[in-house]
Amino acid sequence: MSQGGRWLIAAAKMARRMKKQRLIENSSSPQWPARVAVLGVGLLGGSVAKSLRRANPDTHLVAWARSGAKASTLAESGIFNHVCESIEQSVDQCDVVVVASPVSHIASLVHEAAVHSPNHCLITDVGSTKLRIAEAVDEDPAACDRFVAAHPIAGSEKTGIEHAQEDLFDQKLILLTPGSRVTTPWIEKATLFWRLTGGIIREMTPKDHDTHLAAISHVPHLVSSLVAKVAPRAARGLAGSGWNDITRVAAGDPQMWTAICQENRSAISQELQRVREEFARLQQIIDEADNAQLQAWLAEAQNIKNNPPSS
Amino acid sequence: MSQGGRWLIAAAKMARRMKKQRLIENSSSPQWPARVAVLGVGLLGGSVAKSLRRANPDTHLVAWARSGAKASTLAESGIFNHVCESIEQSVDQCDVVVVASPVSHIASLVHEAAVHSPNHCLITDVGSTKLRIAEAVDEDPAACDRFVAAHPIAGSEKTGIEHAQEDLFDQKLILLTPGSRVTTPWIEKATLFWRLTGGIIREMTPKDHDTHLAAISHVPHLVSSLVAKVAPRAARGLAGSGWNDITRVAAGDPQMWTAICQENRSAISQELQRVREEFARLQQIIDEADNAQLQAWLAEAQNIKNNPPSS
Repeated sequence: MSQGGRWLIAAAKMARRMKKQRLIENSSSPQWPARVAVLGVGLLGGSVAKSLRRANPDTHLVAWARSGAKASTLAESGIFNHVCESIEQSVDQCDVVVVASPVSHIASLVHEAAVHSPNHCLITDVGSTKLRIAEAVDEDPAACDRFVAAHPIAGSEKTGIEHAQEDLFDQKLILLTPGSRVTTPWIEKATLFWRLTGGIIREMTPKDHDTHLAAISHVPHLVSSLVAKVAPRAARGLAGSGWNDITRVAAGDPQMWTAICQENRSAISQELQRVREEFARLQQIIDEADNAQLQAWLAEAQNIKNNPPSS
Repeated sequence: MSQGGRWLIAAAKMARRMKKQRLIENSSSPQWPARVAVLGVGLLGGSVAKSLRRANPDTHLVAWARSGAKASTLAESGIFNHVCESIEQSVDQCDVVVVASPVSHIASLVHEAAVHSPNHCLITDVGSTKLRIAEAVDEDPAACDRFVAAHPIAGSEKTGIEHAQEDLFDQKLILLTPGSRVTTPWIEKATLFWRLTGGIIREMTPKDHDTHLAAISHVPHLVSSLVAKVAPRAARGLAGSGWNDITRVAAGDPQMWTAICQENRSAISQELQRVREEFARLQQIIDEADNAQLQAWLAEAQNIKNNPPSS
């Protein structure tokens, strides 16, 4: 073999070694994650699975179903390679477990996943509340080091796997809220994982998450339901596009939102109080016929609406 | 000429006479309304004009512009045959005048239109409030018999003629709220006119209109602005599609909405009070951690949202 030939072979070997090294640094095999389980498959869990399938057609996707009836629906969806009624079997040999149940069941499902999955397996979730779950998992030796909580700011008033979309998370924020026992490599792993879904990753504490989300999501949702609930029967037929948009999320699942309010009660209660104080101020402005003040008040709301911060 | 030929000519004559008769019964020449003026042209006035143009390309459309600058914009839009800075000249020889100004100017523009337009001319408007305007016009001998107020339940948070659409009113409700001095033929004329825009006509009293609209439009709008206004700076970047829809109309024109609140203050104030009472009840349910009650409350809102009455 010529000198040039030997040099080419050596260069190719080095390139392969570097590629392999890079993948190891990413804590990944060439197709990491090779196997992912979703526990609690509805709109969000189904969309996570579809987005992973889009990112890598070879990923082995497992769904855990609480009941036989649910298992049939999941199997018929054709999204998963395998549907399983046992958590233990679902998470076996997984690289990642995604808990996508209602928030009130997340901490216990994270525990189950941690007990039965291999030590290298990342555990994450999609819950809309974080602090109480983080506190519970912090006390759970089986799960506390490798559960990296996540909240994709994406969803719909529609529920169920039939509305799952592979692009639901594209360019949407995904908030990572690791607990106090989670180390940086696991956060990096969670970041790599959630990027596969198409989202944009941002990290914050569970407490900040719950305070901010109470203000920008949970209480606005309750206010939307309030607007729907107080609509007098005689006026409902006169609703225009304004009312329809304001109340869109009021069509959401009452059970899911009750669980969110239960988990984030303290922050939601404080925020409700704050909104009600501003509401009282608004009524005062209206009742005093203070048009200049009212116009300034409306202009401030308009200004906030028209100037969203870059996320 | 044969018997058959004479018969054919007679039949054709009769058909023409019947067609003419039908048009007269509709208080219409073949192209009624041949000439329409719009006073105060923005999103709604521009959309009325475009929908009329779609219904009949030959309608002569006149826009009144308060200023020379506004006149240039209107002329550039290409929607109108004629743009005019004098109300007197705008409404001259018109069959219909549409007042599409902010609600606080409607009654005085209706008066101007009545004084300067021919006696056969219908006067209508697009205002979001009705009672105070109706009371003012009822006292106006020049206008009280031929002003048939209208409120198309269509619009947008966007303003200005550049957003005008010919299909804005298609299949949308148009509420007619004639005052106490208006007779049936004028209401029929208004019905014929508004049907040309593509809308569905419904009649109610000015008072019922203002009560219902306070509940289904004006107060929901204020609540939407409230949700935008209280959004904490640190949380704004985390807004998802729920918040975005709830606050969509908060981008609306503060001046326009101040005028609406001014005109319909009494009904809006009562409705605000009612919503605040329900809001207090909601906070109590949350604070008492009464999950069954909260779920029932949310389910009631969901039920109202998911079962709109047929309009």
